[in-house]
Amino acid sequence: MDKGQLLYEGKAKRLYQTEQEDVLFVEYKNSATAFNGEKKAEIAGKGILNNRISTIIFERLKENGIDSHFVKRISEHEQLVRKVDIIPIEVVTRNIAAGSLAKRLGVDEGTPLKRTIVEFYYKDDALGDPLINNDHIDILGIATKEEVEKIYELGLQVNNVLKAIFSEIGVLLVDFKLEFGRDTKGEVLLADEISPDTCRLWDAVTNQKLDKDVFRRDLGSLTQSYEIILARLGGN
Amino acid sequence: MDKGQLLYEGKAKRLYQTEQEDVLFVEYKNSATAFNGEKKAEIAGKGILNNRISTIIFERLKENGIDSHFVKRISEHEQLVRKVDIIPIEVVTRNIAAGSLAKRLGVDEGTPLKRTIVEFYYKDDALGDPLINNDHIDILGIATKEEVEKIYELGLQVNNVLKAIFSEIGVLLVDFKLEFGRDTKGEVLLADEISPDTCRLWDAVTNQKLDKDVFRRDLGSLTQSYEIILARLGGN
Repeated sequence: MDKGQLLYEGKAKRLYQTEQEDVLFVEYKNSATAFNGEKKAEIAGKGILNNRISTIIFERLKENGIDSHFVKRISEHEQLVRKVDIIPIEVVTRNIAAGSLAKRLGVDEGTPLKRTIVEFYYKDDALGDPLINNDHIDILGIATKEEVEKIYELGLQVNNVLKAIFSEIGVLLVDFKLEFGRDTKGEVLLADEISPDTCRLWDAVTNQKLDKDVFRRDLGSLTQSYEIILARLGGN
Repeated sequence: MDKGQLLYEGKAKRLYQTEQEDVLFVEYKNSATAFNGEKKAEIAGKGILNNRISTIIFERLKENGIDSHFVKRISEHEQLVRKVDIIPIEVVTRNIAAGSLAKRLGVDEGTPLKRTIVEFYYKDDALGDPLINNDHIDILGIATKEEVEKIYELGLQVNNVLKAIFSEIGVLLVDFKLEFGRDTKGEVLLADEISPDTCRLWDAVTNQKLDKDVFRRDLGSLTQSYEIILARLGGN
């Protein structure tokens, strides 16, 4: 397929039209950003790693009955995905307290939660992606009650599959962010990427961080951490 | 009744035991605080005004079938209330965008909301009273699912009554904060106070602020504003 018009450029990916109306190219960039874009870097190899890791995870989710926009990986930096209209809600599922949750509730990072929880954040850089509740979503008019219920449930279902995948390879799934879109039929579909950019992943024995916190907190080589995840997932 | 031991001192009130186990004295202080206690002042007359206003509102709620901890006003600064164990959730009901909601969602202050919404904040000064969702409440263990449903519904019910009361006297009920407690039987009961300290009240014609924003934003005399509310409510 040929790369058509650039439709969208985000912090970590570019989306291009293909000649097929409902299929897009995704190009994984080497950019790393944190703190709502305040911290930025170009990290050689990051795009390739996230493209590979995300591919493996979307394929594993599919094997486990969870469909996504992912079609296939077509090059080092590129995937084909089904075109969706992104719902501007970042869906964060958490098993262990970390990051903003630890701060919000005054809980030590690393504390296991009594149960898995799901949070919604309004995907809006200018507002700093604030936490929102179901009533906020309703008045913003960004998703219906049924869609909110569905993405909440999918947050938990994806968690069950991912937790098992990472548990097998000695990695704790601390938390992760999902995005959803509406496909051409208006159905809610898992979209975006699932990678160490969007998950907190800790080595189950050493608690070593193997995710974007390595970049956020200057803890060492980001690509070495992502390579560990890719290798344990059986990728190369 | 005699004032017994000081049980609790908050930013705006002191609670004392009475000789009756399940009844407390509430003393309304003249302190005004804002921004999580960063801005403070003593304002002569404020305690008397809030004691009177809160009394009228609790009585009107009772007439409309909504029970609260309020028993009776016994002096200029004091009420008797039923003893409750406060649930550490600030329940904010909103009809019009203002304050933190306007900032959170990027909506202009004064924009009517598509529908009344309810928000929960974790009552914790050290954490800055953060917004929380139902899952946070669950893992914090601060209220049961049934209690959360009840306080959400009470947020809406109290709104219906208060909106009517204020509408009659030419005042817009923009938003307000409620607190609830568990009585000696473990039942959820409306508590705290309802006053211009805890409600945003705007003159319906001029949009003049008649609430604590006068103090927060240095808009003039707080007591003059509260006196307008008291007078229009038929108090003196």
